[in-house]
Amino acid sequence: MVIVIQCTDKVGLVATISGLLQQQELNIVSMREHVDGIQNRFFARVEISKTIDAQILEMQLKAVLPPDAQVIVNPNPVKKILVLVTKEYHCLSDILIRNHFNTLGAEVLGVIGNHPTLEDICRRFDMPFHLVSHEGISKEEFEANLSNAVSKYTVDYIVLAKFMRILSPSFVERYPLQIINIHHSFLPAFIGANPYKQAYERGVKLIGATAHFVTNQLDEGPIIAQQIISVNHSFTTADMVKAGKEIETAVLANALQLVFDDKVLVYQNKTVVF
Amino acid sequence: MVIVIQCTDKVGLVATISGLLQQQELNIVSMREHVDGIQNRFFARVEISKTIDAQILEMQLKAVLPPDAQVIVNPNPVKKILVLVTKEYHCLSDILIRNHFNTLGAEVLGVIGNHPTLEDICRRFDMPFHLVSHEGISKEEFEANLSNAVSKYTVDYIVLAKFMRILSPSFVERYPLQIINIHHSFLPAFIGANPYKQAYERGVKLIGATAHFVTNQLDEGPIIAQQIISVNHSFTTADMVKAGKEIETAVLANALQLVFDDKVLVYQNKTVVF
Amino acid sequence: MVIVIQCTDKVGLVATISGLLQQQELNIVSMREHVDGIQNRFFARVEISKTIDAQILEMQLKAVLPPDAQVIVNPNPVKKILVLVTKEYHCLSDILIRNHFNTLGAEVLGVIGNHPTLEDICRRFDMPFHLVSHEGISKEEFEANLSNAVSKYTVDYIVLAKFMRILSPSFVERYPLQIINIHHSFLPAFIGANPYKQAYERGVKLIGATAHFVTNQLDEGPIIAQQIISVNHSFTTADMVKAGKEIETAVLANALQLVFDDKVLVYQNKTVVF
Amino acid sequence: MVIVIQCTDKVGLVATISGLLQQQELNIVSMREHVDGIQNRFFARVEISKTIDAQILEMQLKAVLPPDAQVIVNPNPVKKILVLVTKEYHCLSDILIRNHFNTLGAEVLGVIGNHPTLEDICRRFDMPFHLVSHEGISKEEFEANLSNAVSKYTVDYIVLAKFMRILSPSFVERYPLQIINIHHSFLPAFIGANPYKQAYERGVKLIGATAHFVTNQLDEGPIIAQQIISVNHSFTTADMVKAGKEIETAVLANALQLVFDDKVLVYQNKTVVF
Repeated sequence: MVIVIQCTDKVGLVATISGLLQQQELNIVSMREHVDGIQNRFFARVEISKTIDAQILEMQLKAVLPPDAQVIVNPNPVKKILVLVTKEYHCLSDILIRNHFNTLGAEVLGVIGNHPTLEDICRRFDMPFHLVSHEGISKEEFEANLSNAVSKYTVDYIVLAKFMRILSPSFVERYPLQIINIHHSFLPAFIGANPYKQAYERGVKLIGATAHFVTNQLDEGPIIAQQIISVNHSFTTADMVKAGKEIETAVLANALQLVFDDKVLVYQNKTVVF
Repeated sequence: MVIVIQCTDKVGLVATISGLLQQQELNIVSMREHVDGIQNRFFARVEISKTIDAQILEMQLKAVLPPDAQVIVNPNPVKKILVLVTKEYHCLSDILIRNHFNTLGAEVLGVIGNHPTLEDICRRFDMPFHLVSHEGISKEEFEANLSNAVSKYTVDYIVLAKFMRILSPSFVERYPLQIINIHHSFLPAFIGANPYKQAYERGVKLIGATAHFVTNQLDEGPIIAQQIISVNHSFTTADMVKAGKEIETAVLANALQLVFDDKVLVYQNKTVVF
Repeated sequence: MVIVIQCTDKVGLVATISGLLQQQELNIVSMREHVDGIQNRFFARVEISKTIDAQILEMQLKAVLPPDAQVIVNPNPVKKILVLVTKEYHCLSDILIRNHFNTLGAEVLGVIGNHPTLEDICRRFDMPFHLVSHEGISKEEFEANLSNAVSKYTVDYIVLAKFMRILSPSFVERYPLQIINIHHSFLPAFIGANPYKQAYERGVKLIGATAHFVTNQLDEGPIIAQQIISVNHSFTTADMVKAGKEIETAVLANALQLVFDDKVLVYQNKTVVF
Repeated sequence: MVIVIQCTDKVGLVATISGLLQQQELNIVSMREHVDGIQNRFFARVEISKTIDAQILEMQLKAVLPPDAQVIVNPNPVKKILVLVTKEYHCLSDILIRNHFNTLGAEVLGVIGNHPTLEDICRRFDMPFHLVSHEGISKEEFEANLSNAVSKYTVDYIVLAKFMRILSPSFVERYPLQIINIHHSFLPAFIGANPYKQAYERGVKLIGATAHFVTNQLDEGPIIAQQIISVNHSFTTADMVKAGKEIETAVLANALQLVFDDKVLVYQNKTVVF
C-alpha cells in the first residue's frame, strides 16, 4: 500500500507518521520525504507492506497532521484513464500496447479523437473510440460535445496523447491535476505552434519533449518529466519531427508510469517526483 | 592536413574537389560533405594524409569551385586564443589545465578579466592575466580599454569563459565568428539574466548549457554544442547553479575541441558540425 | 537513390566515384566516407537526387573500382523482413506498430514464434503468425521446421525480436549479415543467461542493450547500436528487467532504422554506421 | 548535520529514529530511506537543521536501534583525502582545481605518485607531492614505501586517480571502504589491461567508466557511479582513450561528491546512493 502526504512543514512530522504506522505494526518498505524550505512544505510517499483499511488510516493520519494536510492512502492502484487524440499515432499506440499487455499501470477506458484517423488502431485493441469532431461547429459546441463524451466516464486521469485542441478553462478546472499533456518541445523553449520548425531554424543541437499537468496557462502546468534527443545539421524539419515523436513517446510513457505509481506530488506550479 | 570548403551547391563539386586532390596524389583520409538543400549550400571537410603547400592548393581549389567558395587549406593547426573571464573559475580552469598539458588543441596566449579574482589561477600556470576593470568608468571607456588589451594579441579565437559583460556591436564585428561564448542555459530557453532562478521557479527536470558563436544578437549566434543534465525537486537554485557549472565546463570544452579541429562550418545563423 | 560501397582503399577513390556520378549529371545530396587506416578499407555511402538504372550504374562503378569492391546501388528501398519471437511482446509490438503506420522503413512479411503467446497481437494487425514449436522435438527437428517456415519467404532481413532460441551455424550461414538480434545486455558485459540478475548482484548503476548482426559466435556479431539506462539501489531484478525492456525496444528500433536506411556497412566484425 | 544509519530491518525503525529526533526538537530537512528486502537491511540518511553534540546523539540512536546498527552522526563535514597517481593528469587536475576553489567537499592533504610526472602540477597548487617510485625495487619494497608515505597522513579517503599499481591485500584491508578507484572501463566489461583496445576491436558504440570502492577483488568492489560516452567507427583506439579520459574525470568527480556528501552507504558488495 502507498501513502501520499503533503502539508505545511513542522518539527516531528516523520515521527508522527512513522509512529502511527508502527503502532499498527506496519512495516515501511520505502519512504521518500522532501521539505521545500522556501515554501515550508512537507511531502512524503510511504510504501507499507501490509494491506489495511485505507479510509481508517487516512482519518487517523489526518487527525495527527497539520490541518492543511492532504493524505491519500492507497490511491487507486489501477488508475482509470481516458486518452484524447487527434491524428498522430505514436503516443496512443504505445499506450494501447502497454494497456493491452497490462504493463501500463492503468486501465484505458476509452479514446476520444477529434479526427477519425485513430479509430482503426483502437478497434484493433477492442478499445472504445469516440469521434468528437470539431469541424463545422463552434469552439463552444465542440467543447460541449467533448465534455459530454468525457463525462460519461469516471476517470482518474485524462491523457492528451497529441491532442491538438486547446481545452477551455472550465474544462480544465473540472479536472484539476488530472489532465496530463505531452508537449512537443523542451519547455520553456519554443512555446506555441511549430516548435520543430523553430528548432530547425535556430539550428539547435538538442530537441526535447515535456510531459506536464494541464492548467489554464498554456504549456505552463507543472512539469512531470522531460527528455532530450541529439540532432545535427543533417536533420531537416521533417527529421526533427520524426526524432521528436520518438522522444515524445518515451517521455509520456515515463511520466505516466510515475503518475500511475503515485510518485508525483504537486504544489504550486511544481512537482515533487519521488 | 585539413581542407574546409563551403560554396553554392552545384552538380559535380565532390568530383571537382576529389579529382584535383587525386591529380596531386593526395589520399583522402576522411571526407564529410553536407548539402543544405533549402539554402542550396555545399559544405565539406576533407582530411588528406600528405602535407603540401596550403596556399597553392587553396588557389587551385578556388579556381575550379564556384566564385563564392570559401576555401581554407590547413587552417592553423594550433589556434591562438584569448580567454575573457569575470569571476567564475570553472571554465577557465578547465581550459588552463588542457592548455598546460597540450591537449586543448589551441594555445592560450593570455587571459583578460574584468575582475582580479582569476589572476591567481592564471599566475599559477604562468599565464599572462590582464585586468581590465569596468568599475568607475563608462561602458564606452571600458570597451575601449578592453579592445586595447585584446588588440595587443593576434588571435584566431576569443573565448568568453563566463565573461559577464556584453560586448559592443563594433567589438563583435571586428571578430566575426571568432568569439565563442558559453551560455548558462539551454537556448532558446530562459534568455537573459538568472536562468537558473527561472529554471528553479519553472520546476524544470533538465537544465542545459549552450556554446555558440557571438553575433550582435544577444544569445542568438550560431549554436556549436549543447548538453543537458537532469535535475529534480530536491535542487535549490544554488544546486542548479552548481550542476550548471559542470555542464557549462563540459559543453564549452566540447565546442572548443570541435572548433579547434576545424569541424565547425557556419552559414547564416547555423553551424554544420562534422 | 543510395549507393553503398566498400573496397580496399587507394588514392583517388572519391574522385573516381564522384567523377562517374558527375558524368551522368547526378547531384550528390549527401556523402559519407570513411577509411579504416588499420584495415586499409574504404567505405562510402552516397545519396543522389535522381533515379536512374541501378544495375547499369552498379556495373559502371565496379568497372572503375578495385576488384574487391562491393557496390550496391539503390538497395531495396523498402526491405522485406521476417520477425522471430518467443513470448516477450515489447520489441515485436513496437515493430508491428511502425509497420502498420508505414514508418518502419521496411515491410514485415510475417512473424514466426516458438510459443503461441504473440499470435494474438499479430492477428490484431492482420500479420501472418507461424507457430514453430520447439517442444517435444529435437533441436535438429525444431531447426528444420524453423528453416522450412523461414524459407517460404524471400526476405532482406530476419529480426530476432527477443527470440530465445540459439540458431544453428548452418542457419546463420544461410543469412550472412541478414539476421539482427537485440541482446539483453550491454555487450561485452554479462554474456549469457540472466544478465539482469547478474547486473543486480553486481550493483551496477547502468544497464544497457545491444543490437547486433548475428554470426556464429554467440552474442559476438558486429554491433549496430547500443544504449544504456540508469538504475540504482532501489531497483530489484524485476525492475531492471522492466527498465531493460524499454531500452531493448528503443535500441532495436534505432538499429533497424539505420539498417533499413542502408547506413550500416560491415567489415570483419565491426560496423561503420553513417 | 547528517545522520547515516544502516542495520537489520525491523518494524518501526523510522518511527524510532524520527521520534528520537523529535524529542530533541530536531527538524528533518531531508530523509532518504531504503530497505533491501532480500538482505533484510535498512539504510537511512537524515539531514537535520540544527547542530548538536554528535557523540551523544550517536549513542542515543545506537541505544534504540538493533545491536548491529552502524550509526554515524555528522561524519566529518570536510573529509581529508590523499590522492595516488601515476602519470595521467586529467583526474588529478580536476581534483586539484576543485580543492583549490573549495568546491571539492574535501581537503586534499597531499598527492603520492609513483612517477615524478605530476609533481609539477601539484607544486603549482602548493600541494605536497611525494614520489614513491616502484623502479628498481621489489613489489614488497615499493608497497612498504607506499604504506609508509600514506601512513604519515590521517585521512578519511584515499583516491586512486589513475594510479596504475595494484595495491596489496594487506594495504587494502587497512583502509576498508576508504579507497576509491576510477576504472577505465564499463564494469564488468573488459576487465583488465587495455580496455580501450579491447573496445576498439569489439567495435562498441559506447564506452564507459566506473568509480568504485577498492576491495581485494580486482575491479570488483562496490560500484559508486558509472557513466558512458558514445563512440563510433571513426574512433581510433587513441580517440577512445581520449574520450575515455573525459568520462573518467566526470564520473570520478561525481562519485567523490556523493561520497564526500555522505550519500553512499555500502553493504555486501553493493552501494546505496541516496
